[in-house]
Amino acid sequence: MTSPVLEAIYNRRSIREYTDKAVDSELLHEIIKAGIWAPSGLNNQPWRFVIIKDQQVRHRLAEQTKYGHIIKAAPALIAIYLDPAVMYNEVKDHQAAGACIQNMLLATEAVDLGAVWLGQILQNKKEVNEILGLAEDLDLMAVLAIGHPANRDQKSQRKSLGEFILEEI
Amino acid sequence: MTSPVLEAIYNRRSIREYTDKAVDSELLHEIIKAGIWAPSGLNNQPWRFVIIKDQQVRHRLAEQTKYGHIIKAAPALIAIYLDPAVMYNEVKDHQAAGACIQNMLLATEAVDLGAVWLGQILQNKKEVNEILGLAEDLDLMAVLAIGHPANRDQKSQRKSLGEFILEEI
Repeated sequence: MTSPVLEAIYNRRSIREYTDKAVDSELLHEIIKAGIWAPSGLNNQPWRFVIIKDQQVRHRLAEQTKYGHIIKAAPALIAIYLDPAVMYNEVKDHQAAGACIQNMLLATEAVDLGAVWLGQILQNKKEVNEILGLAEDLDLMAVLAIGHPANRDQKSQRKSLGEFILEEI
Repeated sequence: MTSPVLEAIYNRRSIREYTDKAVDSELLHEIIKAGIWAPSGLNNQPWRFVIIKDQQVRHRLAEQTKYGHIIKAAPALIAIYLDPAVMYNEVKDHQAAGACIQNMLLATEAVDLGAVWLGQILQNKKEVNEILGLAEDLDLMAVLAIGHPANRDQKSQRKSLGEFILEEI
């Protein structure tokens, strides 16, 4: 089987190195638009976003994770949050965040940019909210580092399909 | 902006009514393959799947959710699980499940099938594992009901983009 969508899913890779070229805000908005078209439980649309291009703020965020070098190098970041005021079920809202982020990663490649999903920074979610001037109860889900890819030669691997299928009934 | 991937993301809809036509196992395997190409934290690939076509089993599962009529009507189901033996962080593993499911939904449309993400059945996850003969600790994340769409006239709505963007720094 082949289709542009399946190819995009199979060929997407985490991009951790970027050129110096700035990222258009219009493209970042398109990436976020793709995110919000993910499904969510009860269609509660719990996602919220912060776009960060400012170098000083990026450098402060970089100190909150061992992957700070990526955050410093990326010309743009999008922090993905859940709004506790509309959350209804932790597991399902976290799943909705994952669905949203996956749409964003696919959209990033569709607009010829590259991104990596950063989760380790969640260890300092309180500090991140302080740096961004956000209410304490907004729940950080991930940070995407985004830029024009310096290269696209990343490899990735998966176990064979049969190892994932428990039963066919 | 337009691209086949962005169009797929914006045009995907939940499909809850199906024709009687059976679903090829090959297509279900393609959908699962799309799922496992989602990213996961530490690349732990925590997803597991059960394919269910058997009518008797579907009817027993239908009793576990108020959306049982959809489960009965769908010629195929895929139950998505997380394997606790490889999970490392609940939030991130639940996000990985969401990313996996979103790939599966996009792949379903790419192979000309339709699907809906069912989560309400998680209220009876213990009973579902019993019906499927699975170990109690396998963690049910969702059930996808899949079939050939009876129609594709579903509508869906999102709030405007500006309501999701907290800040641009």
